[in-house]
Amino acid sequence: MPVDLHAFAAFAHDLADAARAAILPLFRASATIDKGDAVAFDRVTEAYRAAERAMRALIESRFPDHGLLGEEYGERPARSAYSWTLDPIDGTRAFISGVPVWGTLIALTEDGRPILGVIDQGYLDERYIGHGGAAEMIVRGVRTPLKIRSCASLAEATLSSTSPDLFHGAEAGAFEMVRHAARLTRYGCDCYAYAQLAAGRMDLVIESGLKPWDVHALVPIVEGAGGAFVNWRGEPAWSGGQVLAVGDQRLLAPALIALRRAAN
Amino acid sequence: MPVDLHAFAAFAHDLADAARAAILPLFRASATIDKGDAVAFDRVTEAYRAAERAMRALIESRFPDHGLLGEEYGERPARSAYSWTLDPIDGTRAFISGVPVWGTLIALTEDGRPILGVIDQGYLDERYIGHGGAAEMIVRGVRTPLKIRSCASLAEATLSSTSPDLFHGAEAGAFEMVRHAARLTRYGCDCYAYAQLAAGRMDLVIESGLKPWDVHALVPIVEGAGGAFVNWRGEPAWSGGQVLAVGDQRLLAPALIALRRAAN
Repeated sequence: MPVDLHAFAAFAHDLADAARAAILPLFRASATIDKGDAVAFDRVTEAYRAAERAMRALIESRFPDHGLLGEEYGERPARSAYSWTLDPIDGTRAFISGVPVWGTLIALTEDGRPILGVIDQGYLDERYIGHGGAAEMIVRGVRTPLKIRSCASLAEATLSSTSPDLFHGAEAGAFEMVRHAARLTRYGCDCYAYAQLAAGRMDLVIESGLKPWDVHALVPIVEGAGGAFVNWRGEPAWSGGQVLAVGDQRLLAPALIALRRAAN
Repeated sequence: MPVDLHAFAAFAHDLADAARAAILPLFRASATIDKGDAVAFDRVTEAYRAAERAMRALIESRFPDHGLLGEEYGERPARSAYSWTLDPIDGTRAFISGVPVWGTLIALTEDGRPILGVIDQGYLDERYIGHGGAAEMIVRGVRTPLKIRSCASLAEATLSSTSPDLFHGAEAGAFEMVRHAARLTRYGCDCYAYAQLAAGRMDLVIESGLKPWDVHALVPIVEGAGGAFVNWRGEPAWSGGQVLAVGDQRLLAPALIALRRAAN
């Protein structure tokens, strides 16, 4: 664990605060404007860019040697081992639909490995943060350690995925196998599902087609809470793609039996 | 509009307050207990019953002639034209997964017709209420009229459904037709989707297999905001089953072209 990790964590909170301040005035702001969802799409873009600008300015001022990675601006190479991965609004569709399961994702990588992650849901005043092998949530001002719950088998598990429509061909079949084995399945949660998994309220999350900026923040939170975050071959999933997060690690083997067949 | 409707609305707020007080201490209360989701299932049952008891006691004391309809206790016939329909926790799966899109549903029917409806999401401090041809939301203390947004065609529409897994056979095909025509689709919202439709943030909700206590509260809210709430034949859907809610009523005809084929 690098000596600076606690300073980095404090700075990550500053980044999340700045993103909240930029985003919250625009969440649901289009509700009274009677121009359909085109306005909603404009608002989420405006919120996304404002949050990205605010976080980027803080990083460039405080850690000019650090790299940056994000959807809107690609990659700015680091002149040190450290790089920040930003996704100001993960779950833009949830955002424009008024459903507060979107989140701001902030991660710090060291030589490519995610070592600190934040999921911030500002409308709910909930922040999930992981680093140094531990994780915690700050919910409406109350700080609690994050710990996955016990779950011995798929038959007892709650599964989540943003949408079954994101799986194609063999992926859809593999997901269906796990879904039929699981006790219940929830859709529609975006990054919020990983937060709930870390908090011990869900057991598995399965997704496909993720980008590095979708996953970097999730890894230290899920792992810090005692879970595992892998691709469909069971390997580290830092680059995104097909991902599997489990709380109780006894779920890894049975889930991978199904998913490995469709791993690309 | 009956003379008593405003008094009934004030009483519906009392019912929703009582349900909140019973439910909120139990939402996410199992997070620190390491016994998997069996505990979560117990908690939601406990919360459901406590809220139902509290609301039922208020109704029996204040309006002893009114009827009662709910999942847990069936139907108590009315000795007047009025009956209350209660679903203390619509979206029990969301509740046990820690995702605040469940809601308390409260409706008043007059000779079987829903004339007043409440969707209450206590964790978010959001209440949606409709009666007398209008609807409003009270979000964190701020009161705003509910009004659907303009949406001229399916190609511009945001569609929501709790889960595509709830549609069977021809239903699944009909839903897919609408989904492919829509601009985007959200899953996982339970009653909260109807609230967002009334607030002008979504355009269509399509579901199947609903019970009367799932729908009575929704009708006055959706209609009061300017939308329509029908079955897949385009008729009143007070008994539940296959339902279609639209904001802009121009969406009714194109959605029903697909759904009518699978109407039962």
